[in-house]
Amino acid sequence: MTVRHIGTEIGHLSRISIKLRAASDQTGAMTMTAPTTLEKIATWAATTSSDWSINSVTPAIHAIADTVACMVSGATDAAAIGVRTTVHSWPAVGPGATIVGSGCRAPAPFAAFANGTAAHAQDFDDNFLAALTHASAVLVPALLALGEETGASGADIIDGYLVGLECHAAIGRGVNRSHYLKGFHATATVGCIGTAAACARLLKLDEFRTAHAMSLGTSMAAGLKGQFGSHAKPFQAGMAAQNGLLAACFARDGVEGRAEVLDNEYGFLKLFGGDAPPGWDFAAFPLGTPHVIEAVGLAPKLHPCCGSTHKSIDNLLDLKAQHNFQSEDVESMHTFVNTSNVLNLCFDAPQNEMEARFSMQYCMAVALKYGFLSLQDFTPEAVQRPEIRALMPLTTMDATPPEAELNPAGEYVHELTVKLKSGAVLKTARTCAKGTIGDPLKDAERRRKFDDCCVPVLGDAKSATLYAACNDLIGCQDLAELIPNMLASSAGHAHVA
Amino acid sequence: MTVRHIGTEIGHLSRISIKLRAASDQTGAMTMTAPTTLEKIATWAATTSSDWSINSVTPAIHAIADTVACMVSGATDAAAIGVRTTVHSWPAVGPGATIVGSGCRAPAPFAAFANGTAAHAQDFDDNFLAALTHASAVLVPALLALGEETGASGADIIDGYLVGLECHAAIGRGVNRSHYLKGFHATATVGCIGTAAACARLLKLDEFRTAHAMSLGTSMAAGLKGQFGSHAKPFQAGMAAQNGLLAACFARDGVEGRAEVLDNEYGFLKLFGGDAPPGWDFAAFPLGTPHVIEAVGLAPKLHPCCGSTHKSIDNLLDLKAQHNFQSEDVESMHTFVNTSNVLNLCFDAPQNEMEARFSMQYCMAVALKYGFLSLQDFTPEAVQRPEIRALMPLTTMDATPPEAELNPAGEYVHELTVKLKSGAVLKTARTCAKGTIGDPLKDAERRRKFDDCCVPVLGDAKSATLYAACNDLIGCQDLAELIPNMLASSAGHAHVA
Repeated sequence: MTVRHIGTEIGHLSRISIKLRAASDQTGAMTMTAPTTLEKIATWAATTSSDWSINSVTPAIHAIADTVACMVSGATDAAAIGVRTTVHSWPAVGPGATIVGSGCRAPAPFAAFANGTAAHAQDFDDNFLAALTHASAVLVPALLALGEETGASGADIIDGYLVGLECHAAIGRGVNRSHYLKGFHATATVGCIGTAAACARLLKLDEFRTAHAMSLGTSMAAGLKGQFGSHAKPFQAGMAAQNGLLAACFARDGVEGRAEVLDNEYGFLKLFGGDAPPGWDFAAFPLGTPHVIEAVGLAPKLHPCCGSTHKSIDNLLDLKAQHNFQSEDVESMHTFVNTSNVLNLCFDAPQNEMEARFSMQYCMAVALKYGFLSLQDFTPEAVQRPEIRALMPLTTMDATPPEAELNPAGEYVHELTVKLKSGAVLKTARTCAKGTIGDPLKDAERRRKFDDCCVPVLGDAKSATLYAACNDLIGCQDLAELIPNMLASSAGHAHVA
Repeated sequence: MTVRHIGTEIGHLSRISIKLRAASDQTGAMTMTAPTTLEKIATWAATTSSDWSINSVTPAIHAIADTVACMVSGATDAAAIGVRTTVHSWPAVGPGATIVGSGCRAPAPFAAFANGTAAHAQDFDDNFLAALTHASAVLVPALLALGEETGASGADIIDGYLVGLECHAAIGRGVNRSHYLKGFHATATVGCIGTAAACARLLKLDEFRTAHAMSLGTSMAAGLKGQFGSHAKPFQAGMAAQNGLLAACFARDGVEGRAEVLDNEYGFLKLFGGDAPPGWDFAAFPLGTPHVIEAVGLAPKLHPCCGSTHKSIDNLLDLKAQHNFQSEDVESMHTFVNTSNVLNLCFDAPQNEMEARFSMQYCMAVALKYGFLSLQDFTPEAVQRPEIRALMPLTTMDATPPEAELNPAGEYVHELTVKLKSGAVLKTARTCAKGTIGDPLKDAERRRKFDDCCVPVLGDAKSATLYAACNDLIGCQDLAELIPNMLASSAGHAHVA
């Protein structure tokens, strides 16, 4: 028996096909084989116009500013401090990139690692529902670090962010929800590949090198949900930021991966797709038309706690605004959410700030009493406030059956019923939390969150300067001049290096 | 309907369990829960005696020397040159670690990346059948880089190597062959976790911090076989070397992962184990008793070509030694190997050195003509030699049925029949290639391979110095003094920086 014909169909022939494609790309001729999924995305990433609509640029600037605020605040977290300590072992020669929280400079990959960990450390950074990732916590630290080291402009950062976000969505849609439900940390895995594309764009790589950047990003894609609840969760976001940046630099310098690595037998979809991934369909989700930031948008968090509480908190604030009741008027509050939300919110009587972030009772009590939630509500002392603990028994929670969560449109209704002592029964429901594209944040809400993150670390004046700099990012000519002034603060101290 | 009871069983309770365990470990009290798989391995790694048997130390030194030779030679490969170019962007402040092939110094993680890529670039580095990995190509670059940066001794490197190799086996046995057959690049995935343990040992971390190092190594474990046939294959070995080193440094500085990450619902076994992983059974494979290097051993390559050819080449050399025939005496040579070997060896008529490495006909022709294979046989010119091409049609190959390869003992017989023009029919068979524990290399064979790798790059005198330094590693007091003299050579030039 001989199996030679099987042998010719795998492995080395694929390599030859890449070499042919590479040669033809380099001479500008047509590719000799149909483009792979990775090549389709890379071609869009390398060649799409940088003349972005204001409807894309404005939310991108908002997302970058929101992520910078999360980095400043999150740099005080234990996970971020640990990563920063290690990264300080290897200071930069030459320009380097600023580490938020210390102002030290490190090689860009290490700065991206430290700042990405900080961005995700308090879980206050935005969600990106198109890819089931925290896209900005990976993209923004990588782009700022690489941009600072290379002297990119603010417009280049925005351009790289928009390219990266669309690539994030393109990869994420191919494998999710299946990938995430299996247990992969999509923020880290999908995020690494999308961020490789973003950094390739910032380095102005052509479509051939961009494909290699994304291929190497796929080699470096790692991260498991089995780490949730530990430092390793934000660590994995920082890791993806580092690796996406590294992948682009390696591709720039001639390192090559396979263009079939998303599609082939031992590739990303088969290995990381989970039990029933949809695969890639660019007819259903055309790249950039419209840009995903306009079509789906980001979901910045207004409340510094588990996203599973957000629609319930918003429901409560909606009812308070409509009916103008106070905490002393309320007899009970009943929430109706999804099963996965109930599973996330497993602390009825939280004893510390970590547990309080995952307590519907605590979050609803604070919202009822004060009308909003702040980072200052998540300290060991704040959790024990008698006036809040007295209100926690008012809240009860039930879940819809698990099957309800398989709704592919992803619009899950959360209901709230508030009974007042007067006998009045108030009901409301939401399909989207505040901050999502269906109910975007107002300028004042964005500013309040920014200050909530930055003022305790930087003080009022420097926070205002940073806010202005973020919002003027498009006018910045050289990030290497802007960033050290903007972000070189020691955590907990209001000074600029 | 309420699902609160389910909620208490996942996620945050696991975190609490870690915190309790951490607190108790730090006070030296008994742990409050049964140790996880990761904790069992980490406890062994942190606490096992450094008083190793000579039967472990000697093969460890041989493996380190063999890997150093592969690094020197592999640093001339395109994949290694590309990675090195990128890493040069970020030179070291302070001690740093030497990049083989340029003599530049970089932060230890980057040096490990470059040198790991070099070690695996020519696929001439050893196999480690216990874990289905190229263990040394990940362990040795990481340990040498970290050891150089921290001024470790040669004995510390050997100790770290032996600890790391056993941990490599412990992780690999839990998921293989299933993990590898699914398509994960075990060298990179398993290798990262095992190398985190090795580097933790070099840093002298306690068992608690060692568990965190291995947990973070699991977060960083990446790499797919979908990249085989491209630069990304050796790149993934370099990546694992970098990441294992980083994981240990992060754990040293207080970053923590979950101790359940190998075992839990969204952990390594479930996500990366493939279709039917065996899971971990330390009764069947006790950690270190005997050490895996004595029980299973490494499989250094004597021939610089695909391992699938090795038993056939050895069979031929065995027959030549017994019967003393020459190439002109031979009428035909028929090999009988496994299906996967045939699939690997898909070039009957190779046109370049890459294809020649995966050609049974070419390798057998060289072995028949010259009695051994050298790196010099794998150049574009060597492949076209008329005297070799004339001998290639003598070889035919057939495969056993695929089922034969599921033999759990992993001992696959390869048969060779040589017909001489005299009418004589010579037959032989092998279950193990030369270099494996069943047929270990002789000193002269090891030295010839070392010189084959190093002399074209370093010249005779420096190769001899390097060989002596590797074999005297146990006497080295400070790697920071030894390494720059030993490995700071520019590829292709015989000078020492």
